[in-house]
Amino acid sequence: MTRTRDLAKYDSIIQASVNLTNKLGFDGISISKIAKKAKVSPATIYIYFDNKEDLFTKLYIDIREKMSKGALEGLEEGMTTEEMFKSIWHHSFAFNLKHPEYLVYREQFERTTMMRNIKPEEFELFKTIDSLLRRGIEEKTIKTLPLPILTAFSYAPIITLLTYHNAGIVKMDENHIEQACAIAWNAIHS
Amino acid sequence: MTRTRDLAKYDSIIQASVNLTNKLGFDGISISKIAKKAKVSPATIYIYFDNKEDLFTKLYIDIREKMSKGALEGLEEGMTTEEMFKSIWHHSFAFNLKHPEYLVYREQFERTTMMRNIKPEEFELFKTIDSLLRRGIEEKTIKTLPLPILTAFSYAPIITLLTYHNAGIVKMDENHIEQACAIAWNAIHS
Repeated sequence: MTRTRDLAKYDSIIQASVNLTNKLGFDGISISKIAKKAKVSPATIYIYFDNKEDLFTKLYIDIREKMSKGALEGLEEGMTTEEMFKSIWHHSFAFNLKHPEYLVYREQFERTTMMRNIKPEEFELFKTIDSLLRRGIEEKTIKTLPLPILTAFSYAPIITLLTYHNAGIVKMDENHIEQACAIAWNAIHS
Repeated sequence: MTRTRDLAKYDSIIQASVNLTNKLGFDGISISKIAKKAKVSPATIYIYFDNKEDLFTKLYIDIREKMSKGALEGLEEGMTTEEMFKSIWHHSFAFNLKHPEYLVYREQFERTTMMRNIKPEEFELFKTIDSLLRRGIEEKTIKTLPLPILTAFSYAPIITLLTYHNAGIVKMDENHIEQACAIAWNAIHS
């Protein structure tokens, strides 16, 4: 960032955008509404972002990077495939449990045409899971199946479970999280 | 329906609404746009529906009922829990594979506040899966866990896999469908 930029202002723009988008959807919000909520001038927003679409896209990338960082922080050298799988599973679950607003934003964004500019395979978490599953297939601890089928039964249910949890359909306590992680591993374990 | 109503017209309104909503989202469409697409007058639409929200809600219920019917049509007297589970899984997968437009509509609708008027537990498919899982838990062929956790790893991945399939991320051929159904059953099997 150049010296005309200010991290606190940037963060308040980001926070205001997440809140407003989750409440009103992408069609319902404008730069001026975000400015008002973030208590900055619209001109300030244009220091950081070219336009509304640029703001929404950068915000999505920012959230995906935060999710990656949260999910990967428990990894250590020398872990087995199963240990790595479970570490990522638990940390991802815990991060998303703590940040329901990011999940809502992510799901909303992924339903828009702005998603065409995103390459999911470039996110750190995507790359790590991809190489983890390939390693498991190679060493025969994970079923030989296309990777998207493996993730549909292992990591994708994290989103389903958290959506249920946030909607009050099921309460994911420590015990349930532990059991769900075991099911996820057993589902793809060879 | 009274004799002022006409099933062909009703169907073309339904079809036009699904197409337009999937293309433009709920905010982007109006009764007059639907009328134009369905080649009926706006007044005709008001014979069947009170307003836009009523139309979208009835359409959602209609689609969910079609999905139920498609998923349940293979069931037969005397099937075991595993046979019932797999029959519903395969028929649900096949029905949704054939009707991607229903899935898109369903997911869009479920993100709106109109969803508050819907009671998912009243759909036939919901009730059947609910009692199937309870039966499995009782006879100890299915793990003793809250039902939403069981569905997150068994039936919910159908939606994930079809979303991947429709986006070209993985091709779900007969062989993959068979393997995915086996994973779903093993994930919850006790």
